[in-house]
Amino acid sequence: MAPAIVLVKPQLAQNVGAVARAMLNCGLEDLRLVAPRHGWPNPAAYPSASGADEILDAARVYETTREAVNELAIVYACTARLRDMVKPVVAPREAAAELRLALQGGARAGLLFGAERNGLSNADVVLCRKVVHVPLNPSFRSLNLAQAVLLFAYEWRMSEDPRPARREPRSALEEPASQAELRNFFEHLEEELERAGFFAIPEKKPAMVRNIRNIFSRAGLTYQEARTLHGIVRRLSGRPKGGIKSPRG
Amino acid sequence: MAPAIVLVKPQLAQNVGAVARAMLNCGLEDLRLVAPRHGWPNPAAYPSASGADEILDAARVYETTREAVNELAIVYACTARLRDMVKPVVAPREAAAELRLALQGGARAGLLFGAERNGLSNADVVLCRKVVHVPLNPSFRSLNLAQAVLLFAYEWRMSEDPRPARREPRSALEEPASQAELRNFFEHLEEELERAGFFAIPEKKPAMVRNIRNIFSRAGLTYQEARTLHGIVRRLSGRPKGGIKSPRG
Repeated sequence: MAPAIVLVKPQLAQNVGAVARAMLNCGLEDLRLVAPRHGWPNPAAYPSASGADEILDAARVYETTREAVNELAIVYACTARLRDMVKPVVAPREAAAELRLALQGGARAGLLFGAERNGLSNADVVLCRKVVHVPLNPSFRSLNLAQAVLLFAYEWRMSEDPRPARREPRSALEEPASQAELRNFFEHLEEELERAGFFAIPEKKPAMVRNIRNIFSRAGLTYQEARTLHGIVRRLSGRPKGGIKSPRG
Repeated sequence: MAPAIVLVKPQLAQNVGAVARAMLNCGLEDLRLVAPRHGWPNPAAYPSASGADEILDAARVYETTREAVNELAIVYACTARLRDMVKPVVAPREAAAELRLALQGGARAGLLFGAERNGLSNADVVLCRKVVHVPLNPSFRSLNLAQAVLLFAYEWRMSEDPRPARREPRSALEEPASQAELRNFFEHLEEELERAGFFAIPEKKPAMVRNIRNIFSRAGLTYQEARTLHGIVRRLSGRPKGGIKSPRG
């Protein structure tokens, strides 16, 4: 089960909505509010959630931080200010990796985020096992509440599956062209270049061929693109139908 | 030089402000606007920048994407929709690592972000070398513009220095206690437990000692905390001044 996000005394309902959006973006679902200043439920939270209503509908409200984290075994405090308190400090990436490992054993975890203006109180931080701190620009580190939640939630999601989405090829023509197919194109191109007198100085030909092949090798052509290039060469060389020479424009 | 952030036809000035904030959070400074719908400069952008005014003040405006990326050598397109276009897709983490490597050679780079409603046009995407795609919850992947910029900017910053900030110990007492210091405490504690009759069953003592030592070893005590624990043991055992036994309560 993914960690709970616990907002302690959030001030603006629209920030709670934006937090819900960031959570759902990253597959987190358990939102807990401690003494929200604007009351709860609050319709003002919904527009900024941009459709993540299910998170807001299911949010639970508590009077104190202690109650909100009661059944959680592992609680981390997310804070921009490092406290005068001896506590391990981790970046969001480490926090996500640690929690994912711990939760595989079945423990429940949560992250505390403080109010927009002042962050978490020391009394809240002292409850937590570790402090999560984003290593931002030291001269401008104040993050919006939803953005702080997003960075942790994003790392949580990336710790599960950091591979980027791939677009599936629609047909075999969108697959990368084989070496044989590339060579086929190179030979066609070089034959036409030869015929057109491009390799005027014979001793330079090998280097020129190498450079040309390098350009197209690097491009990662698909079968379709290789076909297109064949067509381009045929057309430019005035032989659009493979062998039948027609006069150029 | 860090990559430029190019917002193509942004719709809301407040989103441009939030983008500026996320950029400065992560040390990015070059903001470019292509045909902003709300005009530019625009005072409505400043409140959401929360002090990142220098980014907004220095933002440059262009009429077309082509002009905005004119002198850049490497341009990536950030998009939530995967196009019907054969183009390498990378996650923000890979994009940041690739651009950092490329920029070390002196090339200039930029990332294109589309408008809030529709994202980038295919005509813009086709200009780009690669597509950056955040692997979010597939059933809820729409990110706010500033949050999309933040995720790339955060990865850019993390690719430079992914270590979390550390709070420097204020004194030697805040340093982690040495093994000798820990052993000193263990022996003190065990001596008092022995005296108090805690180890009633002698054959169980080794396992009990091991369990107790394990608790305190795991805690990562500082010298100060070890001192405090010594004091606790002394006080509980009725010997607050090391050896002089005073009556309890």
